[in-house]
Amino acid sequence: MTDAPAPGRGWVAVVGLGPGDPRYLTPSAAAILAEAEDLIGYFPYVARVPERPGLVRHASDNRVEVERAAHALALAAAGRRVAVVSGGDPGVFAMAAALFEALEAGDPAWRRLTITVEPGITAMLAAAARVGAPLGGDFCAISLSDNLKPWEVVTARLEAVLRAGLVVALYNPISRARPWQLGAALRLAAEHRGSETPVVLARAVGRDDESVRVLPLAEAADAPADMATLVIIGAESTRLIPREGATPYVYTPRSVEAAR
Amino acid sequence: MTDAPAPGRGWVAVVGLGPGDPRYLTPSAAAILAEAEDLIGYFPYVARVPERPGLVRHASDNRVEVERAAHALALAAAGRRVAVVSGGDPGVFAMAAALFEALEAGDPAWRRLTITVEPGITAMLAAAARVGAPLGGDFCAISLSDNLKPWEVVTARLEAVLRAGLVVALYNPISRARPWQLGAALRLAAEHRGSETPVVLARAVGRDDESVRVLPLAEAADAPADMATLVIIGAESTRLIPREGATPYVYTPRSVEAAR
Repeated sequence: MTDAPAPGRGWVAVVGLGPGDPRYLTPSAAAILAEAEDLIGYFPYVARVPERPGLVRHASDNRVEVERAAHALALAAAGRRVAVVSGGDPGVFAMAAALFEALEAGDPAWRRLTITVEPGITAMLAAAARVGAPLGGDFCAISLSDNLKPWEVVTARLEAVLRAGLVVALYNPISRARPWQLGAALRLAAEHRGSETPVVLARAVGRDDESVRVLPLAEAADAPADMATLVIIGAESTRLIPREGATPYVYTPRSVEAAR
Repeated sequence: MTDAPAPGRGWVAVVGLGPGDPRYLTPSAAAILAEAEDLIGYFPYVARVPERPGLVRHASDNRVEVERAAHALALAAAGRRVAVVSGGDPGVFAMAAALFEALEAGDPAWRRLTITVEPGITAMLAAAARVGAPLGGDFCAISLSDNLKPWEVVTARLEAVLRAGLVVALYNPISRARPWQLGAALRLAAEHRGSETPVVLARAVGRDDESVRVLPLAEAADAPADMATLVIIGAESTRLIPREGATPYVYTPRSVEAAR
């Protein structure tokens, strides 16, 4: 009976699981998961956390982020210790923003709960590490999903960062419901950067089915990709170092020349 | 004698130590550090790795990144197992790009070495997690250091991302040699975003002397900051949720309205 819920002891932690391999889960996140009584999240992320007695799983489908967050807050208000799990980092196109949206819109009493966010290795860092240092200069992270923002905003942002010379990491590049956005983004990139600009397509980094390819920009639009793919478009200065029997290293030098 | 160096067995790993607290060091990075014979890096990062018999430390001052990287590659070519350590993530304004610069410019034989990059929790993820979810929308990471790029490039990039509505994380905001750049960047931001836009100044997150402040943009330029500070400038949509007795939560909603 020591674990009976009691109002006041509940908490919500939004936890980043990293790219998938448990060796990338931080000890801090692992400690929180070990304390949690309820696990809330998109089902493949919930499935990553090992079973143990007393752990209640609430796995849900994609696209119900705010409902899921409100559920977590309500459970914590009832005295439960709740971990909301995200792949990668929860603050990067994942559950943390949804949690605070639900907090702001919900029961004012929820604001007295203990709410923490546990950072994780986000996909662009894992993908970059696999190929070298493509994010070596200034860079940005843009979600290609137009579920929550108009496509014109996506393209305006892409144009701005392409013109400004930033390396571009694309999250949520493609899905069954959004099949053409990645191709459109890469064609837009080709208007601003040379056809040989390195593009990294990193799928499921840190998982058993990992595959990482490096292609010139001119060929990248035709390469297969899916929801688990993270795309990095190099800057004009991004370079390849060939190596035998492996994908070339990709890196962006730290120095930038004066504007021409 | 089993550990005598032998050409062919050497490797270089560029390892991200995360923000400082060992609970944010990934098990994968910790395993690499446990295997390393030589530790190379800026002295405060080298000092973070616990002493153990057989571990040789090569701590150096700031601003000698490429020399340090070449040293690491030469040691590995002589058969040593070398960890090059960076705070945060080594691919984000840290040692990984310098390592590949040294590799490309150096002895062609170095290209046959085993070179890996171990990702880490970079400062903007740690800082964001402390206050909520300020990176909840599209965002960018820009270094304010003009040691390696002209200041005009920095301001042109800032203007572009401020106009485009991205959340902006500023690395290397200020130092004794660069005292005015952060103020200039924040004044530029104030030309594009409202005076109440939340700005996060997060110093030494995950270390004993951590301090995190959230200020309106109009006041941020006068706030103290140093080399260990990571600055996040919110988007127009970034919101505060007040809470009793603590810094308000800061988050950027996932949705973006159509352009006005």
